[in-house]
Amino acid sequence: MGRIVQKFGGSSVADAASIKRVARRILNAKLAGNDVVVVISAMGDTTDELMDLALQVSPQPKARELDMLLTTGERQSAALLAMALSDLGAEARSYTGSQAGVITTGKHGDARIIDITPGRVEQALNEGNVVIVAGFQGVSQTTKDVTTLGRGASDTTAVALAAALGAEYCEIYSDVDGVFTADPRIVSGARHIPEISYEEMLEMAANGAKILHLRCVEYARRESVPVHVRSSFSDKPGTWVKDLSKGNPMEQALITGIAQDTKEAKITVVGVPDRPGEAAEIFDTIARNEINVDMIVQNVSQVASGRTDISFTLPMDDGRKAIDALNAAKEEIKFDELLYDDQIGKVSVIGVGMRSHPGVTAKFFRALSDADVNIDMISTSEIRISVVVDADHVDTAVRAAHTAFGLDAEGEAVVYAGTGR
Amino acid sequence: MGRIVQKFGGSSVADAASIKRVARRILNAKLAGNDVVVVISAMGDTTDELMDLALQVSPQPKARELDMLLTTGERQSAALLAMALSDLGAEARSYTGSQAGVITTGKHGDARIIDITPGRVEQALNEGNVVIVAGFQGVSQTTKDVTTLGRGASDTTAVALAAALGAEYCEIYSDVDGVFTADPRIVSGARHIPEISYEEMLEMAANGAKILHLRCVEYARRESVPVHVRSSFSDKPGTWVKDLSKGNPMEQALITGIAQDTKEAKITVVGVPDRPGEAAEIFDTIARNEINVDMIVQNVSQVASGRTDISFTLPMDDGRKAIDALNAAKEEIKFDELLYDDQIGKVSVIGVGMRSHPGVTAKFFRALSDADVNIDMISTSEIRISVVVDADHVDTAVRAAHTAFGLDAEGEAVVYAGTGR
Repeated sequence: MGRIVQKFGGSSVADAASIKRVARRILNAKLAGNDVVVVISAMGDTTDELMDLALQVSPQPKARELDMLLTTGERQSAALLAMALSDLGAEARSYTGSQAGVITTGKHGDARIIDITPGRVEQALNEGNVVIVAGFQGVSQTTKDVTTLGRGASDTTAVALAAALGAEYCEIYSDVDGVFTADPRIVSGARHIPEISYEEMLEMAANGAKILHLRCVEYARRESVPVHVRSSFSDKPGTWVKDLSKGNPMEQALITGIAQDTKEAKITVVGVPDRPGEAAEIFDTIARNEINVDMIVQNVSQVASGRTDISFTLPMDDGRKAIDALNAAKEEIKFDELLYDDQIGKVSVIGVGMRSHPGVTAKFFRALSDADVNIDMISTSEIRISVVVDADHVDTAVRAAHTAFGLDAEGEAVVYAGTGR
Repeated sequence: MGRIVQKFGGSSVADAASIKRVARRILNAKLAGNDVVVVISAMGDTTDELMDLALQVSPQPKARELDMLLTTGERQSAALLAMALSDLGAEARSYTGSQAGVITTGKHGDARIIDITPGRVEQALNEGNVVIVAGFQGVSQTTKDVTTLGRGASDTTAVALAAALGAEYCEIYSDVDGVFTADPRIVSGARHIPEISYEEMLEMAANGAKILHLRCVEYARRESVPVHVRSSFSDKPGTWVKDLSKGNPMEQALITGIAQDTKEAKITVVGVPDRPGEAAEIFDTIARNEINVDMIVQNVSQVASGRTDISFTLPMDDGRKAIDALNAAKEEIKFDELLYDDQIGKVSVIGVGMRSHPGVTAKFFRALSDADVNIDMISTSEIRISVVVDADHVDTAVRAAHTAFGLDAEGEAVVYAGTGR
């Protein structure tokens, strides 16, 4: 007799048959005695199709109007899901993000949730309804215009609603059975992870694991919402993302998982005057263009020339913008040339266990060396070590690390129901 | 430097190219110095496609959820049109019916406008924006849920907004050049009508002319909003629907136009006991099923049997429901049998001139007789005479009446840009 929030992604509601299947799953949760709130994404490729339409009408669609357009996708799937539930005998009501009280900042296309005022959701629950909320959207606190939270942010809507409604937990459904020690498409012996801490999941999400949206995990950690990541195609338990700090640290694995990210590119600014402020000039330019830089390496200065090289990684999609911005600022930064390389990949080993175990870095680097993988850049956090390698070496590096840290499953075949998320 | 409301239908915004074309037309109105509010329908067949999707999910979709689903169509076209206008350099903002303050009753699928509170529209206009409002929709005064006003009701949204905003006039764009003395697809010599009174337009709309929605004309008359019906494919003047009572009645034509309706069916209830209350029983049954009856004829009672026949016409789409309802009430009504005929058509001659000119009925019937058209039923209002004839005879009857009342164009070819509205 709890209150739960369930979130289903676009692939779970791609057509009428899928919507009916999801409705039956929701009904089961309701019949088990739960108050159920569902957050839903747009059907299949709807968002991409609407974006195509917008670009046909305008090469640079206004962000406010794009939000008005794109949010219709989730409203459609929410209404259709409510109809399907009513057909099964469960009273259901769909709500837009605005109606559900998802109050956001005014930054169209990338708004942040400021507050949730779920009065209408509470009332509908108290009247016995299953409540369906259109994900990915809210309403600007200042302008009252419709906003979107950025692609994939329906996960965040779900966790935020779970926190605001005091739900027991939040279920995030996708097409995989949860989180694995590595991507099963790369490592055939990858193992299912039954529980993972918020901190480790944050590092996984930030370093290429697509299973949960980064902001969703941040929100869940801040509000202490347990998140159950599971497949909408099976009844198997998924992965619980929750506070594990009260567990027995002695039983924790040294390394929880390996993540890889092949969506980054590297820019090298060659021949920068080695004076204070020059690096700041570069990253000021990048920041003004709202590009997030990941790893940064500055070469040892060549004393003879008084110049140095600075390399950094950034999302591949921002590559063109960054190059243009730096070239435009060439007079101020005074570099010689720019090198661009998107044939790179980042491999990260993650685990809270490394806090108390020295030697993880050495073991990781040894494994890469034994596999003939050259390391280009390195960065670390308290619970993560990341390296940049050639794109061609990413899979080899992931497999080598997975084996080196004893994560390979012992003989058991991993069932992976993925359809390419 | 006036304030105007323009409404464009789905065929005017069927694809990206059409949307850009409509945007240029709106821009011209803005550049001419007007404050412009635009009411927009869903793109092309969007509403039908969404309805198909709903029926795939549920055989009887919940009305509340259907409204949530269908209203997304107008929101999409509104957002796309705003993007296209911004591209042309005109600031534009799209609003949902709810955001534009269209307050309605709570009857999902067929709500009525109670009030318009256009605060946000006013503000956006004052800031120099073209305002785009999603047609066909509003928000329930009591439940705050999204409602729709019934198919084709974007015309009504436009006129209601024009009234609330104190607009000079309301332009309704479609794919024809306005109102003609008869359907040009039937009468090649049909003439364009430059001005028509609200009363005549009401009769035209109620009797089969598809050019304007009935409720829209009622609203325009009540609020005294001049309506300009014109084509979005040309710059030619269309038809002004307005108060003509102050004009010179001597100059008014006897008959303004001929309308036909082939979407009605006739039901005859055979052998009804000829006692007070039996007819009431029949029409109570029909009314309980929310079916609108048009014409009613009761035969002269056959004294010997004490029984009579009652015939009435109704929208063809309601035929099945009416037959089922009457059969279910056979015990109470005590009729012998039901006859159903949908091979009928209604032809109406309309004109305020007939108020002061006797002999119109005689001339109409003589023309039909000369054309060998048999009259099945008759009904009249102060400014209209309608007859029911065989469906096969409708075109002949329309042409005969058009000629008899001197409406045929003299030699000039009528340009008709219709694409089948």
